[in-house]
Amino acid sequence: MFRQILEKMVNDVPGALSAVLMGNDGIAVEQFPAQSTDGQSLIVELGNTVKEIHHTTTVLAVGELQEITVQCEKVTFLLLMLNEEYFVAMLLDSPAAAGKGRYVMKRDAGRLRSALD
Amino acid sequence: MFRQILEKMVNDVPGALSAVLMGNDGIAVEQFPAQSTDGQSLIVELGNTVKEIHHTTTVLAVGELQEITVQCEKVTFLLLMLNEEYFVAMLLDSPAAAGKGRYVMKRDAGRLRSALD
Repeated sequence: MFRQILEKMVNDVPGALSAVLMGNDGIAVEQFPAQSTDGQSLIVELGNTVKEIHHTTTVLAVGELQEITVQCEKVTFLLLMLNEEYFVAMLLDSPAAAGKGRYVMKRDAGRLRSALD
Repeated sequence: MFRQILEKMVNDVPGALSAVLMGNDGIAVEQFPAQSTDGQSLIVELGNTVKEIHHTTTVLAVGELQEITVQCEKVTFLLLMLNEEYFVAMLLDSPAAAGKGRYVMKRDAGRLRSALD
């Protein structure tokens, strides 16, 4: 069921390349598309980055991590924490649809949380 | 001159707690306020996080890092790369003024770049 939700998220956001549901330990629960070109390396590196940011927020005592946006020349990366252990992330080919992407992630966060329980 | 620019940035964004000009090596060039409560730990942790994200963007070959936004329960952190070596970052007490913060950082990026040269 995770896959259908991630697929709809990707289809609903113009320029979305992929979506992934992942644990803070860096292990992906599900991704769409299942075999994207950068999907595997994204997943590995994503886990490390989120772990580092989690460490930072813990050290600084600034409360739970909620959202991350990283904009690079070629892609925009969006992350929304679902609970203390899992997050959903999307990769877009431009920052133009970042607002739509954030909206879609929040729209489907409840369904992903329910499916995780 | 860095300090005046950072001070104006903090004063122009409602809820802004601090602003820092930093190298990718994690060494701060200047910050405002000079002695903020979380300023020192922010600076140390910030450097590590940005290094990790730089590593990720390099591995994924997604082009130069441009912007990062991290939203936590108690603070929102904004980062704008100024060139390949330096970035400016702001800490806000809520996400409400994140758009204003991003605008102010972009508004003053040219002056910071000129001052760095």
